[in-house]
Amino acid sequence: LCYLTGGMTAPDPRQREALMELEASMQTGGRMLLTDAELRLDALLFKMKQQEVERADFPPAMHFFKARHLIRTSPIFQLLQKMPKGGALHVHDFSMVDVEWLVKNVTYRPHCYMCFTYNQSVRFIFSSQGPKPLPRCSPWILLENFRAKMINATELDNSIMGNLTLFTQQDPETVYPSQDAVWDRFEQAFLAVWGLVTYAPVFRDYYYQGLTEFYMDNIMYLEVRALLPETYELDGSTHDRTWTLKTYQEVTRQFTEDHPDFFGARIIFTVHRGINISAMTGVVEEAMKLHRDFPDIMAGFDLVGREDRGRPLWYFRDALSLPSERGVPLPFFFHAGETDLEGTEVDQNLLDALLLNTSRIGHGFALLRHPVARNISKKKEVAVEVCPISNQVLKLVNDIRNHPAAVLMSENHPVVISSDDPALFGASGLSYDFYEAFVGFGGLGSNIGSLKALVINSIRYSSLTPKQQEKVLALWQTSWNKFCNNSKNAF
Amino acid sequence: LCYLTGGMTAPDPRQREALMELEASMQTGGRMLLTDAELRLDALLFKMKQQEVERADFPPAMHFFKARHLIRTSPIFQLLQKMPKGGALHVHDFSMVDVEWLVKNVTYRPHCYMCFTYNQSVRFIFSSQGPKPLPRCSPWILLENFRAKMINATELDNSIMGNLTLFTQQDPETVYPSQDAVWDRFEQAFLAVWGLVTYAPVFRDYYYQGLTEFYMDNIMYLEVRALLPETYELDGSTHDRTWTLKTYQEVTRQFTEDHPDFFGARIIFTVHRGINISAMTGVVEEAMKLHRDFPDIMAGFDLVGREDRGRPLWYFRDALSLPSERGVPLPFFFHAGETDLEGTEVDQNLLDALLLNTSRIGHGFALLRHPVARNISKKKEVAVEVCPISNQVLKLVNDIRNHPAAVLMSENHPVVISSDDPALFGASGLSYDFYEAFVGFGGLGSNIGSLKALVINSIRYSSLTPKQQEKVLALWQTSWNKFCNNSKNAF
Ligand SMILES: [Zn+2]
Ligand SMILES: [Zn+2]
Repeated sequence: LCYLTGGMTAPDPRQREALMELEASMQTGGRMLLTDAELRLDALLFKMKQQEVERADFPPAMHFFKARHLIRTSPIFQLLQKMPKGGALHVHDFSMVDVEWLVKNVTYRPHCYMCFTYNQSVRFIFSSQGPKPLPRCSPWILLENFRAKMINATELDNSIMGNLTLFTQQDPETVYPSQDAVWDRFEQAFLAVWGLVTYAPVFRDYYYQGLTEFYMDNIMYLEVRALLPETYELDGSTHDRTWTLKTYQEVTRQFTEDHPDFFGARIIFTVHRGINISAMTGVVEEAMKLHRDFPDIMAGFDLVGREDRGRPLWYFRDALSLPSERGVPLPFFFHAGETDLEGTEVDQNLLDALLLNTSRIGHGFALLRHPVARNISKKKEVAVEVCPISNQVLKLVNDIRNHPAAVLMSENHPVVISSDDPALFGASGLSYDFYEAFVGFGGLGSNIGSLKALVINSIRYSSLTPKQQEKVLALWQTSWNKFCNNSKNAF
Repeated sequence: LCYLTGGMTAPDPRQREALMELEASMQTGGRMLLTDAELRLDALLFKMKQQEVERADFPPAMHFFKARHLIRTSPIFQLLQKMPKGGALHVHDFSMVDVEWLVKNVTYRPHCYMCFTYNQSVRFIFSSQGPKPLPRCSPWILLENFRAKMINATELDNSIMGNLTLFTQQDPETVYPSQDAVWDRFEQAFLAVWGLVTYAPVFRDYYYQGLTEFYMDNIMYLEVRALLPETYELDGSTHDRTWTLKTYQEVTRQFTEDHPDFFGARIIFTVHRGINISAMTGVVEEAMKLHRDFPDIMAGFDLVGREDRGRPLWYFRDALSLPSERGVPLPFFFHAGETDLEGTEVDQNLLDALLLNTSRIGHGFALLRHPVARNISKKKEVAVEVCPISNQVLKLVNDIRNHPAAVLMSENHPVVISSDDPALFGASGLSYDFYEAFVGFGGLGSNIGSLKALVINSIRYSSLTPKQQEKVLALWQTSWNKFCNNSKNAF
């Protein structure tokens, strides 16, 4: 299409039409063939989105904490909840389950102790004979006794809940004035959850409950980034990493048996980027071993923790090159570019992740600023895992319409939508993030084709074998057809 | 450069180096050859920027109203002030001069009347025999009398000043909670200034003062978007559009004579996008006539007013096609894409501006979301006039590091930096916007080459003839060399 005629001519409406169509066809899902049922649903979605855009309080322009109750009542959101969303490829192990379940179920179990840290957080432990005191924490309180003395435990429960999530009813800008402040609280909440979820019986139940919550949100497959910690029993004895991975395997099997329309889950083993080089070498070796011994459940390897404060990938290049040097497969799924420190060492993580042959990129928020990395990612089809609510809560972007994924999607850059740490952000499953993507950075131009493409991407860019992918796709197609046919009646 | 080797190899540090260099060379100014003096200055700038990035209060991440006092004390800003910045290509007629000058000079002139509107703004008029009452405004007050009764007029002056600008010491998020709110105040401030600056003697002085303020900020050339309004005299008699344009011509000549190292200014005739089609046809015809009769001062034509609320360019396509249909030259400099309403009619302005053969694009904030328009703009070298502070104050972007120009500059898309309505935003000249560009979206990767390229762009993408451009470039080169040589001593 020659659009450079230029010069002294009045614009040709047919050329304009053609260019607009060209642009629409370039976006994610822009060339998707649609069935009649899909087209009908699309017309409905467009009308809904127009109404949404006209709202004075446009949710994607607001902080998610303020927008959540508005999103919940939005007809588009309710439709997106019902939509079969395929896979959730970027979710962390200990933020899968609504914190209310942790408080109302887990902390009510016997032998649960809590203490108050000196920096306004809490810690937990289960113990049969009473735990050892923790430095920088109050004496341990047995919750069972503590609650027995109360007439109404709701206030305590709410206060515990507030410690396990970043979500707050207060003004988020005031509570979290800076990236440092919000990351500090992020880490405190993580540590608060730790003692609960690493208790072996809870660990098992937590994961099952996590799968349930994603399943209820119409997700059929998960790739969970997991630290594979030691877990402990009431008597203080512990289980090693292999136990943890095996437990993931068993619970996934159990859940898939209980829910035949759920396909399964795989684990991406993660380690904190704060460790030193020799520790990293050991961990990579262990990861290769686990990947060899548990090929069905173990998808690959990643580093976690705040990029801006941690060590860059290049610092660990020798350890991370071990698999390729030894010819041992270990797929990487690196977090990279979750930063706005343009031009720093950390900002090189995107390029380095690609040079280390990462299979996908976690976040890739800074990708647009790196045209070379962006080209490589596009040509090698290294999908970007976009987590809009996470990026907003962790203060990389304010108005979701300005999220860089708007640009990536306008050019059909391989992307998937995910939720990172939904429980920490007061979200759940993928529907909230799909809402932000579809209504926020998707704009009026994104449509049912975009949604379908995003869902198919979540299967195509998963770590599953081509054969498995076909199976998931077939399973998904059935629910999708049902969804499209039902939706036109429901609204 | 083959970067797709991939597969099972450890990353090659030389390849990595090469890719990083490739990326650096792709950015605006990335292939600029630098002199020794420039390289020395660059080393200094890099150190300064590193210190700036480490500040807890990083100014580009803050609202400009809160950041201004921090920017003023920044060594980089002080250096950018001294830097010869070439041309300011996107500046509006009645926001060139610090509002303090309007209050302390203009409102102190004899026969100046003021009234208070019912919506908390003010209006002004100069009149010899007392003006007619204005609807929805208090009775007129002669400022001379009013001030004579006061012991201390400072409070009044400050309150007047607050009405002439959006700048405020209060929390900008509270004062301007939404785009609607800030645009309302924008229009009120504009109307408040109107009665002062359309008084013929003030009109002349205001423009001279405007040129002075830009000249003091080391700018040597301006393209002013001007409404070319009727001006009035004390007795209520008026001058027509031709008088106004001639006055611009005369004052520019005078100023250039008074300042031989200043090159000059040209006018882009603007009309509000709220008018109807037949009025637009008349205005375009008048613009063609003015362009024919005043070829030296009259650069072209543009539409102004908030895009989201006004009529899209395509609505005026017949009127705007008149010049090309008649074979009469009338260069366009359209505002387009100053919006986040993705996918709406207004959002088509970018493509339509290009189809109407615009010479440059004002703002182009939404350009990244339109890959087709972006390609055309790049291939046809239609420069984007980037006004970071304007976009932030008018609530398109919060953290300047997320400004889309970061991406445009990473690929050497033709851009120039401008200030739109500096007086309304509490800025002046171009230095504040250069600061936001260089320290904010430029990141650590932008350097002296980027600055030089931006300045050269402002001459190359001006409406001047190639011959005039050579002259300006030569004039600029002299000051630039001096600047580079002096800076190394000054810091
Ligand atoms: Zn993550
Ligand atoms: Zn403008």
